[in-house]
Amino acid sequence: MNPAHIARCAQLAMVLEVSATPKPGNIDRDHNYTDTRFEHFLASAVGVYPVLEKAASSSSGVGSFIRHAVLESVRWQKGGNTHFGAFILLIPLVMAGGACGDTACLREKVRRVVKETTVGDAVELYRAFYDAKVKVKPVDDFSLGDRDSIDKIKKRGLTLFDMMEMSAGYDIIAEEWVNGFQKTFWCARMVREKIKTRSINDAVVLTFMEILSENKDTFIQAKFDREKAEDVSKRAGEILKKVGGDIEVMRSDLNAFDRELLYEGVNPGSTADIIIAGLFVALFGGMRF
Amino acid sequence: MNPAHIARCAQLAMVLEVSATPKPGNIDRDHNYTDTRFEHFLASAVGVYPVLEKAASSSSGVGSFIRHAVLESVRWQKGGNTHFGAFILLIPLVMAGGACGDTACLREKVRRVVKETTVGDAVELYRAFYDAKVKVKPVDDFSLGDRDSIDKIKKRGLTLFDMMEMSAGYDIIAEEWVNGFQKTFWCARMVREKIKTRSINDAVVLTFMEILSENKDTFIQAKFDREKAEDVSKRAGEILKKVGGDIEVMRSDLNAFDRELLYEGVNPGSTADIIIAGLFVALFGGMRF
Repeated sequence: MNPAHIARCAQLAMVLEVSATPKPGNIDRDHNYTDTRFEHFLASAVGVYPVLEKAASSSSGVGSFIRHAVLESVRWQKGGNTHFGAFILLIPLVMAGGACGDTACLREKVRRVVKETTVGDAVELYRAFYDAKVKVKPVDDFSLGDRDSIDKIKKRGLTLFDMMEMSAGYDIIAEEWVNGFQKTFWCARMVREKIKTRSINDAVVLTFMEILSENKDTFIQAKFDREKAEDVSKRAGEILKKVGGDIEVMRSDLNAFDRELLYEGVNPGSTADIIIAGLFVALFGGMRF
Repeated sequence: MNPAHIARCAQLAMVLEVSATPKPGNIDRDHNYTDTRFEHFLASAVGVYPVLEKAASSSSGVGSFIRHAVLESVRWQKGGNTHFGAFILLIPLVMAGGACGDTACLREKVRRVVKETTVGDAVELYRAFYDAKVKVKPVDDFSLGDRDSIDKIKKRGLTLFDMMEMSAGYDIIAEEWVNGFQKTFWCARMVREKIKTRSINDAVVLTFMEILSENKDTFIQAKFDREKAEDVSKRAGEILKKVGGDIEVMRSDLNAFDRELLYEGVNPGSTADIIIAGLFVALFGGMRF
């Protein structure tokens, strides 16, 4: 598909995700953090266009595109890191999309794009962590943003895919790379199914809750601990179970859950990243609303 | 400035405008109409990118770019006409922006871009009205979307600028074309001033209220009558006066005004178009938040 089309699908995926409300614990159209606000996410999504367009006509350079997406994102807003995790999923999807006309092709192609990443891609991603001052759990003994780590990666000849394999056990974004973007494609199907009878907002919120209930959010796990992440998923599941997917009935529970997570600073950021990737796949596949 | 930069300034202007809440009577992040929703505006702003980018590297074709912007907008969402008036202001600004490095140049250049429009541009705009099924007051005896009108325009040799001169008395968008985008540049200065001490949301809302209070909204005038438009402006002025620009104090009055206008179907659409154009100029001039 043409790169300008692909890039807009990715922009719109980011814009729709951050708009959907309430997504418990996360920034949305009605909830900001102190230094990072809804509008910072909008500006980031808009600003990153040229990197997305270029990626959509390229067959290599995953790490470099992720790094340049991060750099472009922070050039357009002062809220700091908004879409790092999302770019790690979006960039290979966008690159695959440029070579595909349908979702079946996308699924096959994105597996190949990530498999074919190089040591250079791993180095670029580490540089991106450094650029964005992202605090995440280091992979193995590679401290993020540490120049020594880059030397170690080179010495051991680790590709970006290798690094993701090492992280897949405790990071659902890395797990997506390794397992062929399973949750991403599942998310796309869910949103498309739900949008038949719901608004795009409610389709996204409900899918977010389903993903959260079925997978502990590894961003929460890294920031707090495993127990906290499991507890949040359990709570999400209880809300879904109680109301049987009727978002109107769910709304007061959702709002209470949202307030509690925001108060505790518990944000299911990885789940939001999967939603962005899933929305991209749905829009690529022709979803309109 | 480079076309990809200009196009993103325009996208972000549209996205920030529709997000700002509460903008009494208009769609915003917390208010939808029945068939047109917040997300339709987001999709339109994202979808129109390639037309904006192309316009930013062109020195002619205003009418055709407006028409193609409208067509691309409705290809990306099912909410109908979202940005017609905005495109009439944005397209010449974007074209001027592509040839300029600063705001002083932009102001000069945009005057020339609109002055140099042709009969062909007028015809294209009339075609766009037809494509978008926009209902607005016809200019003089030219019914919008009427094939006869296009023949009459050609016969009388009217340029798009001529048509805007004919409408300037009862349409503030047309007036902008004729008076050198005065309100647009004023709006840009206001937003940049207010953002020094306020969030981008509140800077936009306050500027919206100030423009509305000082100019009757001609979209309201066309839909209802002059008296209704004047009444809305008077009410906006009273709210501003009462609270001296402190948006926190203003909020309950703003919300009540908003509910009332939405209930009556009174939407200050032309004021929103000026806000978009003003935000574009501010972002073009380097505004960040």
